[in-house]
This record gives sequence, structure tokens and C-alpha cells, in this order.
Amino acid sequence: MIIVLKPGTEEARIQELVAMLEALGVIVQRNNGVDYTVLALIGDTTQVSQYPIETNDIVHKVVRIQEPFKRANRLFHPPDTVIRVGGHEIGGGQFVVAAGPCAVESEKHICEMAQLMKAAGAHFLRGGAFKPRSSPYSFQGLGKEGLTYLARAGRDAGIPVVTEIMSIDMIDEFVKNVDIIQVGTRNMQNFTLLRELGRIDKPILLKRGMSATIEEWLMSAEYIISEGNENVILCERGIRTFENYTRNTLDIGAVPVVKRLSHLPVLVDPSHASGIWWMVEPLARAAVVAGADGLLVEVHTDPKQALSDGNQSIKPQKFDRLMKEIEVLASIMGRPLRAPGEERT
Amino acid sequence: MIIVLKPGTEEARIQELVAMLEALGVIVQRNNGVDYTVLALIGDTTQVSQYPIETNDIVHKVVRIQEPFKRANRLFHPPDTVIRVGGHEIGGGQFVVAAGPCAVESEKHICEMAQLMKAAGAHFLRGGAFKPRSSPYSFQGLGKEGLTYLARAGRDAGIPVVTEIMSIDMIDEFVKNVDIIQVGTRNMQNFTLLRELGRIDKPILLKRGMSATIEEWLMSAEYIISEGNENVILCERGIRTFENYTRNTLDIGAVPVVKRLSHLPVLVDPSHASGIWWMVEPLARAAVVAGADGLLVEVHTDPKQALSDGNQSIKPQKFDRLMKEIEVLASIMGRPLRAPGEERT
Amino acid sequence: MIIVLKPGTEEARIQELVAMLEALGVIVQRNNGVDYTVLALIGDTTQVSQYPIETNDIVHKVVRIQEPFKRANRLFHPPDTVIRVGGHEIGGGQFVVAAGPCAVESEKHICEMAQLMKAAGAHFLRGGAFKPRSSPYSFQGLGKEGLTYLARAGRDAGIPVVTEIMSIDMIDEFVKNVDIIQVGTRNMQNFTLLRELGRIDKPILLKRGMSATIEEWLMSAEYIISEGNENVILCERGIRTFENYTRNTLDIGAVPVVKRLSHLPVLVDPSHASGIWWMVEPLARAAVVAGADGLLVEVHTDPKQALSDGNQSIKPQKFDRLMKEIEVLASIMGRPLRAPGEERT
Amino acid sequence: MIIVLKPGTEEARIQELVAMLEALGVIVQRNNGVDYTVLALIGDTTQVSQYPIETNDIVHKVVRIQEPFKRANRLFHPPDTVIRVGGHEIGGGQFVVAAGPCAVESEKHICEMAQLMKAAGAHFLRGGAFKPRSSPYSFQGLGKEGLTYLARAGRDAGIPVVTEIMSIDMIDEFVKNVDIIQVGTRNMQNFTLLRELGRIDKPILLKRGMSATIEEWLMSAEYIISEGNENVILCERGIRTFENYTRNTLDIGAVPVVKRLSHLPVLVDPSHASGIWWMVEPLARAAVVAGADGLLVEVHTDPKQALSDGNQSIKPQKFDRLMKEIEVLASIMGRPLRAPGEERT
Repeated sequence: MIIVLKPGTEEARIQELVAMLEALGVIVQRNNGVDYTVLALIGDTTQVSQYPIETNDIVHKVVRIQEPFKRANRLFHPPDTVIRVGGHEIGGGQFVVAAGPCAVESEKHICEMAQLMKAAGAHFLRGGAFKPRSSPYSFQGLGKEGLTYLARAGRDAGIPVVTEIMSIDMIDEFVKNVDIIQVGTRNMQNFTLLRELGRIDKPILLKRGMSATIEEWLMSAEYIISEGNENVILCERGIRTFENYTRNTLDIGAVPVVKRLSHLPVLVDPSHASGIWWMVEPLARAAVVAGADGLLVEVHTDPKQALSDGNQSIKPQKFDRLMKEIEVLASIMGRPLRAPGEERT
Repeated sequence: MIIVLKPGTEEARIQELVAMLEALGVIVQRNNGVDYTVLALIGDTTQVSQYPIETNDIVHKVVRIQEPFKRANRLFHPPDTVIRVGGHEIGGGQFVVAAGPCAVESEKHICEMAQLMKAAGAHFLRGGAFKPRSSPYSFQGLGKEGLTYLARAGRDAGIPVVTEIMSIDMIDEFVKNVDIIQVGTRNMQNFTLLRELGRIDKPILLKRGMSATIEEWLMSAEYIISEGNENVILCERGIRTFENYTRNTLDIGAVPVVKRLSHLPVLVDPSHASGIWWMVEPLARAAVVAGADGLLVEVHTDPKQALSDGNQSIKPQKFDRLMKEIEVLASIMGRPLRAPGEERT
Repeated sequence: MIIVLKPGTEEARIQELVAMLEALGVIVQRNNGVDYTVLALIGDTTQVSQYPIETNDIVHKVVRIQEPFKRANRLFHPPDTVIRVGGHEIGGGQFVVAAGPCAVESEKHICEMAQLMKAAGAHFLRGGAFKPRSSPYSFQGLGKEGLTYLARAGRDAGIPVVTEIMSIDMIDEFVKNVDIIQVGTRNMQNFTLLRELGRIDKPILLKRGMSATIEEWLMSAEYIISEGNENVILCERGIRTFENYTRNTLDIGAVPVVKRLSHLPVLVDPSHASGIWWMVEPLARAAVVAGADGLLVEVHTDPKQALSDGNQSIKPQKFDRLMKEIEVLASIMGRPLRAPGEERT
Repeated sequence: MIIVLKPGTEEARIQELVAMLEALGVIVQRNNGVDYTVLALIGDTTQVSQYPIETNDIVHKVVRIQEPFKRANRLFHPPDTVIRVGGHEIGGGQFVVAAGPCAVESEKHICEMAQLMKAAGAHFLRGGAFKPRSSPYSFQGLGKEGLTYLARAGRDAGIPVVTEIMSIDMIDEFVKNVDIIQVGTRNMQNFTLLRELGRIDKPILLKRGMSATIEEWLMSAEYIISEGNENVILCERGIRTFENYTRNTLDIGAVPVVKRLSHLPVLVDPSHASGIWWMVEPLARAAVVAGADGLLVEVHTDPKQALSDGNQSIKPQKFDRLMKEIEVLASIMGRPLRAPGEERT
């Protein structure tokens, strides 16, 4: 952190500030110039808050040099984090795909979907049991029952499952039934939830908040990791912009940025990013070649009858074709869909 | 809701759709034209979800006529909702001010602040015990202890208190200690929390999410009201835009819009909206004349030493002056700071 | 400007950079620290471009201390700029109002509007002769003919006129017919136009681009001033955000920010900011108390028949009432609608 | 266009509105329902403006069915528009690349760049002679002289050139010297310029405005086409959002959307979209597989010394590698870099 002081600041005030900063555990390197005095903070400044310093009336400007996240920072952890779930590697050499319906709608349907997704080559089955809906009058998911159906569907088909958690009182149920726990876009800054998820060891799929900066997103990952759980998978799912032809705007550039700033794996969700079924395919392809580690795709046997988000779901047949396209592109990127020696069943 | 069908749709498909819609409990008025067939849905369409209909391949376009919120809608509840707390009326004839430090920092400090705010004429004392901070390494608030200090400070000074809740497991503590429970911007779509707060009868101060549309914000109010708690107070606190000179952009226009769409009271928080202390005064004045029912202002005896958000806090002396300015403007708007017969102590 | 170098940079490279910077005419103050070497640039750095320096591989970070605008900067020109037009003072003690129809529709109509606006106490008559419409098939304004009608209407009623210019080939016509030349939001970064307008001495009303940052807006003012024309009046007219209940989002906070950063007058256009007639009144009031120097309001005798923007125009009767409200608020702000000794005719 | 009337509207008022609409040349299909009366406008409604109708107090809601653009609309022109320049096909079977420095810096440099770009397989040479810079104190380009250098460089190397025009008085010069005329992001709604460019027959590369919706962008294309010039090439170059790690946010989803709505070719500019050299490669790859017809890439022999935008330029060696990657991906998309029979010289 660099602190530029106002010209003409009296010595006593400078020394007061330096003392305050040193008390926070950093080394203060002072640079006296003719006009400006500049203080450079050396050491771990992640714990030094920028705002109170800016408020000080002798301070002209405060500049962060170091990113405020530490455990999620590639600088302090150069190799990629690889998370192993059900024999698959997320963030490693493989390119992975989680697919399935927006919501678990019935036991029969989710079991059918599990078989279809497995057969198409998907690595994980997605499906919501608890649905965050903007209207209290919309279908809210089957809840605990849905969780049980999902777990059974995954077990029967031999495909690990990922689903969204909405509150801390459900953590035990999720740990029991789920392979990857998803934190949705609306809960990306539900810090109480993040903290508690940091105390278990299940992989957490952290979706980007719809108006979260990349830095805020990584800070939310930091919340989880700082409590001990290092198995964080990021997921870009579109941000909110002025453009409203699409439901959200896929920030495809976030993929290379996050891969550079952090060692965590990054997936892309082309279904929520666009909200339109015929955009899933081109956006999925874009994600592969932009360097994502995988995809999260909504698939439904009958989108018209889907209890939620039918408009952005593709049919299994289209998904089969998409998997073939992805396979070609991922292999060009040096990322096969199957790990070496892994059989596609 | 108006549904425009594609030209040339076969009769059987139209009847299938009409039957499906009628099954949802609405009356379908069919209008046959030369080219387009238009279906108008009559009755309560808040429970009819737009997306699945749009997905139907015979549908050209779906248009909502009615807002998707019902209990929060002025159409179904024309008179203003007035919420009474500690002898004050929120949303009625009075203009109210909640003021205090960003965070409860110590028992001594919050008690001092309570006395100062009361003396300046504020109606409510604000102060956070649980602080949602983007960094896990920043000061997170004093927690339960802070809640106790705040309650004591309010009781001693005779000023009701408002503070933010972050998770459902704290609801009992809040009901016991707090007069108005605040839901922060990051939890505006924490639907589990909203639902639970709908089951108590404390007034809820619902801040607008930093990227929430006005409709989404009112839908979140609907979550609370639909469970039974009608005491919802809205609070505009700035939205996220491309402009980054200020921390957020105060959407002053949201005040008249919300007053027209809903019967709920609306406060404005000029401190978070700008993030800059010298902007609090002009934005507070703007809020009064735009028709807000009150303000939420950060005040601190020593902003430089504030444990959070010092940059946007004003000093008590400046707050005194602000209260005088507000009093003049509010009275022009026909909204006195004191209810008739109410003594300022 | 502060340049932080990467740790471990070799001396020769540092000296090379210092030499390059000194060649640009600034003094380089070098601060050697244990880890970081920091270069502080002293003097006028408005001509030093940030990007090429950031690209240098020995540079860690570049931080601007000084705003990149100079002639528009209050730092170098502390007193408010006051622009006198037709006996009125813009940016001085007075609060001014420009009002009239969106477009000049006919000679008869604009003459009637001129009389009405004058009678209501407006200081300036607005009305577009050249209309920038997003569709080539919409009414594009009466062009040169409209300009003549407007000039005549203003002259007959004794009220100065303001209207929008769209290209450089019209400058002579505008100088002849118009009192204040408006640059619209879509042309805020039409640098060729700005430069040419900097070479005349008519006052220029520079609307903020719908997605322009405050800094970019002031840089556009700088384009005009740097060519010699110091008579620049800024106008906030709403920015583009994700919220689409309103046409734009009024950035009311931009008013105090611009008044602090610059000495130029600032008006507010509540009509375009909202796009809704019933929001004009509350937003106009907000603008007055936020510290604006005046307003730009759309008024039409028959909004339903207006050839453009009828939805955001208010009727003359409502405008009369608005002027009375504004008068009260402006006088509280110490800004009378009439200059001392000025008679309202 | 569908117009929903308010319940209980009197018959005379309805007939008045119908008459007004018919006078605009459309057929009005009236649908009487129990509650709502719905008017459907049949025929070419591109000339019917939505706003005045919405203002009518008997109107509840107006809904556009048809896009407001007509000549740019795929509905009325199903086959792809293919534009031939210098033996290359834009929008046809080929994938094309325009590359070169941000600005023409000297005759020697642009000639060297032309040879390098040609050798690397680029189809067009880009380079700005007139530079729209946010600061009047930054390098503004070499102007007319730069145009001559560019033309010569292109001619000598046998590569057609594309460069940006900033005002109508330069059109003749551009027609003489340039193969494709670029309209920059800041001039996307400079309607006077668009109109004039519609009267020549050179291909126009129309960049998306940084905060333009897709509809507004296509309406700007419509301005050009409606005057007679059908050779419009669109270019997505990133939009402005709250995220500021990158200069802009590439709206990769705009590519499939525009290809569906319009028959015009679409290029992508990964350099401006990110503003960061190491993001050019992943974003370029994403553009290819999302279905773009080509790329616009900034390349510079010495980015550090570039007179503008050095931070987002890649070096020729990296560009060579990028061309090879693009070739592989484009051929998977069925879009070779060379037309059949075309030799790479």
C-alpha cells in the first residue's frame, strides 16, 4: 500500500500516522520528496483497511499495490488448485461439465436426467432443491425432499451432484447428500453462510454475484478459505449491465483475469448468463477457448414444461451435440474431457 | 398479462395453452384478429410465471400489465402504510431521521452517540453490531455484545434503535434488543432470511440491493409481507453504476417511483450512497424534497478513528446543522420532524 | 502522478524512465525505499499520458494525483465561473431555468411557448430544431427553418434561446440565431465539434454523455476551453444504468461533485433524466437543493400531440406551479430566481 | 405493435386513436375483450413512434412486436450480407482479420507494420490517423498526413486499409484513401455523420457505442443503410459496466444475438474490449467460436513506445501465434481464413 501525504504536512502528524500503521504490524518505508512525502507499507497489508486511512486529513491518496485477498491469490500460491470429486479433476488437466435441470421437479424426472447426463458424458449432475426465486409466489423447489431425490439420482446413475444451498441451517443435510455445494449469485456476499461453509471440507461452487467486481468475488472466496476450506470453485454466470436483450451479460474476460489473479478453478454458466436457450451453445464454446476449467449447463427433457428457467434450458439431444463440440475445442486447449485412463461409461 | 401468439398458430395448440393458463386460476380473454391472436389474462396474475409461457413455441411475446407484487402494491392498498415506533410515525405525516455510527465500537462510545443523536433531534439510533465486510480480515463488529450495548444505549437515552441482521439464527436476539431490524443491501435477496422476518412483527428496514431493480426490491418486500409482517420500511442507499468517483450512485428518482408503486415508507441513506462525508448534506436535502419519508445518516464523533466507513461519516456538529436544514425543507414538504403534540426532549 | 516501480528493478532502467519523463517537461522526485522505488512527478502532469507508462515492464502501478483537466479545474481557478446571457447570470448568485418544448414544431407553436415560458418566469427558451433521434424514421426536427422560428420566438418574447447543434457545418447559423448552443449527450465526445465550438465565444451547454464518467465529462469541457471558449455550462441529464423503470438514472450526486472539482456552472435536466412527466417535479426540487445552478425543463401545451418526447413534458400550468416551488427552495439555498434589481416582466 | 387500452375507456376516444394510427399508414386490428381492448397494428410499424402513443391517457401499455429496424433486419433480408473488399469476403464463408497499430505514428512505422501484418496473414491493415482522445492534451493523430501514409503503406504491401473518420468534412479524403471507413464508439450516434456515410458506397465499419444497446447499434446501422449504403460491418468492442479491472467488458453474447437479428457481418475487437494485451488472445479465440465474422486487433512492434493504447497492443510475434490459433478454430467453425483458391502471398 502506498500512502501519498498532502504537501506541507507537519512532521508530528506524519509520525503519528506512521506509528498507527506500524501498530497494525506492517513496516512503513518513508520516502521524503521535495513536495510529496510518500509512505510505502511493506509486508502483509491484507489486514490494513484503506478507508480509515483515506479519511485522515493529512492523506492525499491511498493506493493498494497488493490485492486484498491472500489465500485466494496466485501470488502466494502459484500452482493451480485441483479439486477432485468422484474421480474427476476440477482445475487440473481436465475440462469438466456439470449439467441438468434448473430444478429437481420429481424423483422420476431427476433420475431420468441423471442417466441422460451421465450418458452424454457430463461429469456432474446439477439440479436445484432450494430455488431462490425473486417472487414468493413462484415455485420454490422441493426442499429437503428434492435433496434426497437428487442424491438418489446421482448415486443410481453414478454421477456426483451439485446443488445450491440457501441458509446455514441446511449445511448438515447438504454435507450428507451433496458432492459439491453451490452458493448462488444472490448469496455471494452472505458472509455468515460463507464462513460456515469454510468450516466444512466439501467443495464449494461460488457463483459470482450479479453485480460483484472480480475483486469482491475473490474476497468472498477468501472468506471460505480463511476458515480452512480450500476447495473453492468459482463460477462466472453473467453480470448485470444496461443491455437487456439478454438476461445478463457474460463477462467472458473474467475467465482469463481470474485465472491470472487466482489459483482457483473457474467454471462458466452460459445458461444463466444469457437466459436464452439458443445462446448456450456459442457461449459454451467461447468459455472453453477463453480458458475456463468447465461449464455449468441447464438441460431439460421438456423445457416448455420446466417449473423454472425453461427459456434457458436446452434439450438432451442438443446437449449431446454440444458435448461433442466442447470435446473438440477442449482438446485443442489441451484439456481432454476425460482424465488419462478414465473410461467413459 | 397479455400473450401475443405467432401468426398462423393452429387452433389445437391455442386451446391447449388456454387450458393450461385457466388451470392456473386466471380467466383467459381471447381476441382473434386477422393476423395475431392475443390472449389477455384477467384476474390475479401474480402467480403466473412469465418465463415458461415465453418458452412455448407458439408464443410471440408476453407482456406483464400488472406488477408482479401484490401486497406491497399501492393498487391494492391505496393509503400509505404508517409504522409506529417509539412514538414516531414512519410513512405518515412526520419526516424521521435515524442517525449514529456505522458500527457499535464500545459501550461507552455508543452511549455517548445515543445522547448526542437524541439531543440533535434524531428519532432513531443506528449502529451495526454485525458488520457485513467485503474482507474477512476487516473488523466484523462486536456481535451479540454490540447488540447489548446498543440496546442499553438506546434505552438510557430514550431513543429507539435500528441495526442490521445477517442470519436467521440471530432473529430471537434481535427481537429482544432492537426496535427496527435492518436487512442490508447484500441480503436483499436472502430469501430464507426475508421469509423468517415475515413471521415476526418487528418493523423491517429493507435496504435496496446495490444492483436490484425497483421491481426486485419490492418483490423482496413482498416476501416479508406475504408471510404476515406488514411493517416493511424501504431504504434507497445508492446503486452500482459505471461512475466510480462516488462509492455508489444515489438513485434519487427511485423515491417518487416507489411512492407511486407502493404504499410502503421509503428512507434514503446519503452516507452509503456517496461514501463521502461532504456529499451527505446535499444528498440528504435532495432526499427530503424528492418525497422521502426519512433519512439514515452515519454520524461519528471522530470519523478518522472510526472502525469502519469513517470516510462517509459526518461529525455531530455538522449533523446538528443538517437537522436544522432538514427541518426547514421537511416543513415546506408538509412533513414536520415532530408529530403534533410531540415534545422534543 | 506517482509511479511505483517493481521491486528489484535495475538502476539503468530506472534512469532511462526518469529521463523519458523529464523530457515531457515534469520534475521527477525520486524516493528510494528498501523494497519499492517511487517516482513522484511534480509540475503540470496533465500532458503526461498514463497508459504508455503503465505498459513499461518495470512499472508496478501508476497513480494520478492531479485530475487530468486543468482549465476546467477549480484547483487552478477557485472562483465560480459566471456566464452572463441576456441579463441573467448562470453560475452566479441566481438560479436559472431554461424551459420549452422538446422540439420546435411550428412557428406558431414555438412563439406561443416563448410567451408562456417568459410569463412563467423562465430565463431561457429551449426547443430543438435538429433532433438526434435513434430511429432514422422518427421526426428529425425542422432544421434550419426551425432555427429561424426559434430565434424569432425568442426575440419577440424577449427571452434568450438555447438549442442543440449536431454538426460543425451548422456553427455559423447557430452563432447568428442562438444565445446558448447545446451539445447533446450523444455528441459529448464528438471532439471535432467540441474543438470548433472552442473557437467561438457563444456559451456552450455541454450535456453529460449517458455513460460518461464525471472525469470524461470535464475533459470534454476542457476540449472547448483549451481552444479559448471559457463559457461552458455543464448539464447533468441522467446516466444509463441497469434500472429501466426510468429512461435514465439522475445522478444527483454529480452536482456536488462537479461543483467541487470545477468552477463551471451545472444545470440539471429532470425531463430526460426520468423520461416521465410526473417525476419532473420531485427531481427538479432535488436539483435545486443539491446545489445546481439551474434547470432545463421540457414543457409542452399538449404533450399527447408532441412530435417527440411527449411522455416527459409537463404542461404550462404544472410548470407555473413548479416555478413557484423552485423559487421557495432556491431562495433557501441563497439563490433567487431574479438578480437584485431585476424586474420580472 | 400491440396497444393495450385502459379498462373502461369510452368508445369515442378509442375511435379517435384508431383514426390517428390509420393515418400513419398501418392497419389497426381491434380486439374487444371483457376488460381490456387491445389494438394490434399490422403492416410496417417502423415509422410509428412508441412514445407519443404511450403518453395518451387511454393507453395502458404499448408493446413492440417488430424490431424498429427494417433494412438491417434479418426478417426482411434473410441471407447474410457479404461485403467484398480487396478480394476478401466479410460476412461470407471467410473469417477475416484486420490488424495494425492503434495510431499511424510515422510513414516508416506504418509501412513496416503493413508488411508485417500482410506476412502474418491479416486481411486488412488498421491504424488511426484521426484519434478520438478523451484529453485534448494527448496525441491526436497525424491527421490528413497520417491518412496518406496509411494509404501508401497499404498500397505498397498490397493490403486494404481501415481507419476511423471523425467528421463529415473528411469524407472525400477518406473515400479517396481508405478501403473501409470506421465509425468509432463515440460517434455511433453521430447521426449527421451516419447519414452522410449512407450516401457513399464505401464499406462502413460501425463500432458499437460503449453504452449502446444492441437495438440502438442496429438503429445506427439503419441510419446508414436507409440512405442507400448497404455495406455496413458491425464491430463489438466492449461495453461499459461496473467492472473496472478491464477497460470495458466484452459482450461476447452480442455476437450470436446480432447474427440472429441482422444479416450484417459482425467483427470483434478484443484489444479495446479489454484494454490489456494478455487478454487479447483468449478473447480473440472466444470471438471466433461465438460466431464472429472476423477480428480487429491492435499490434505494435514496440508497445512501450506506442503513442496511444500501448497497453492493449500485442507484438507481431504474438500476433503470428494468434493467427495460427485462429486459423484452427475458424476452420472448425467452417470459416477458413482464405477463400477457396485464394493464395496467401
